[in-house]
Amino acid sequence: MSVNQTKEKPLFIGIDGGGSKCRATIYSNEDGVIGTGVAGRANPLHGLSQTFESIQLSTELALKDAGMSISDSKGLVAGLGLAGVNVPRLYQDIVNWSHPFAEMYVTTDLHTACIGAHRGGEGAVIITGTGSCGYAHVGDKQVCLGGHGFALGDKGSGAWLGLKAAEQVLLHLDGFAQSTALTEHLLGHFKVNDAMGIVEHLAGKSSSCYAKLARTVLSCAHEKDEVAQNIVKEGAGYISELARKLFEVNPPRFSMIGGLAEPLAPWLDKDVVAKLSPTLAPPELGATYFARQSFDKKIN
Amino acid sequence: MSVNQTKEKPLFIGIDGGGSKCRATIYSNEDGVIGTGVAGRANPLHGLSQTFESIQLSTELALKDAGMSISDSKGLVAGLGLAGVNVPRLYQDIVNWSHPFAEMYVTTDLHTACIGAHRGGEGAVIITGTGSCGYAHVGDKQVCLGGHGFALGDKGSGAWLGLKAAEQVLLHLDGFAQSTALTEHLLGHFKVNDAMGIVEHLAGKSSSCYAKLARTVLSCAHEKDEVAQNIVKEGAGYISELARKLFEVNPPRFSMIGGLAEPLAPWLDKDVVAKLSPTLAPPELGATYFARQSFDKKIN
Repeated sequence: MSVNQTKEKPLFIGIDGGGSKCRATIYSNEDGVIGTGVAGRANPLHGLSQTFESIQLSTELALKDAGMSISDSKGLVAGLGLAGVNVPRLYQDIVNWSHPFAEMYVTTDLHTACIGAHRGGEGAVIITGTGSCGYAHVGDKQVCLGGHGFALGDKGSGAWLGLKAAEQVLLHLDGFAQSTALTEHLLGHFKVNDAMGIVEHLAGKSSSCYAKLARTVLSCAHEKDEVAQNIVKEGAGYISELARKLFEVNPPRFSMIGGLAEPLAPWLDKDVVAKLSPTLAPPELGATYFARQSFDKKIN
Repeated sequence: MSVNQTKEKPLFIGIDGGGSKCRATIYSNEDGVIGTGVAGRANPLHGLSQTFESIQLSTELALKDAGMSISDSKGLVAGLGLAGVNVPRLYQDIVNWSHPFAEMYVTTDLHTACIGAHRGGEGAVIITGTGSCGYAHVGDKQVCLGGHGFALGDKGSGAWLGLKAAEQVLLHLDGFAQSTALTEHLLGHFKVNDAMGIVEHLAGKSSSCYAKLARTVLSCAHEKDEVAQNIVKEGAGYISELARKLFEVNPPRFSMIGGLAEPLAPWLDKDVVAKLSPTLAPPELGATYFARQSFDKKIN
């Protein structure tokens, strides 16, 4: 395929790069999704060469899945949603890549997640999984809030809930407060019985280790443990505020994405919950819509 | 020298291992300090072989300083104060080391710091530098509180003050609160003008990077910046509580050690400040006192 053929009957590939996986989806306007591929992590913040390798591999797998050959990547219009490309240096590094595609458009993983959630339309999203952040795009306006990473930001995220719980448990164990159900559950989680045991399991560990405690915090809060409730209320309060900040640009739709979206919902303020709509498509499809939109803008 | 000679006229070496330096001090009952040596970091939590190398090198330098030969280490009674040896596995790793000394006694860096602060006597200390923790020993009682490490614990420490300040600045920059003098000072500190700039300088960085912000937080608090004051008051409140917990075992003396001991003092509760006594000797001398006490106990 040549770029000229591409312009007449373009094939798009959406790449959703993340901290654990990279998903590629090949999409045509006529047939929808025709192939998918999954490779390892593709987060430019954690290494460029690994990111390029994962994009390449997921692309090859998607091409194979679509019954195409590896060299057919030269005919694809690519949309990449990647973490960290709001840092100008990283954006430039990605754009400078001698990529295997006909065209390549790069944006943040937040942007493609948002485009996906609203099936190509404008809107706002809040992502609450291991981390947390908010994003909205309406007309020329783009708003990106929070998401400053563990342990600096990401309030209300899984890792943040886990960290706050561990802090509280250690304060309890040092005698600064009474033991509660949360203490017992966390000691049970790690099969330890003192502060040293907790520290051994968590000191210097990644955000995902802390995020594994989030379910315990949420279930203790659900069972009316006061310490757990205070943590969850503070986190959910921040997420509600984050949503209201996004509403200031009047997004036509609002969705929440990520593993904590559902369990956090009962703790959000009612005005925020009232505006919640379901996500319509996953981020990797959002990346194909982004590729198509960017390509259409260029050729028209 | 043989161990028998050692028993008659013992020479002691105190080792104070830390996250950045390892200090060795050779001490005799007759002449006091006769040699000192400094090597790189010796923190078992961050690597055993480096710890052993730093202990060995600082010992050799101290021997040279005392006009002795390297093989004379075989006649020294050593006292080691090391971080992390309250973890039984690490304690055992250190004790199993085929060390170059006549005798070797191992305890935590907190214990030797406390012995030093009270020149061999009993008492309590709070250490507030990059990290924070409290320690007391009175008779058979030993109390060790806090010090669970960044970002899990170490409330009121330099790293904690820096982290809280960075969190607040990011919340301000995302529009969740008004800008204050603290915001301006921290943006100036990093020579950046937005949240991304702050995150680029701090994401994934060590506790010492955060601790470098502590002076700024304290000076803003001193100039009555409300956000900075709230952070410092919360940290100092914890330190005051920590002190009161230590007072429960009735320590005859109480000292504060570390770079933040002095600037934090004005923010501590009056009942705590009233009990403060100056530190009498540094941790590496504390380690020699510990060596002597352990040796005396053994031979008597």
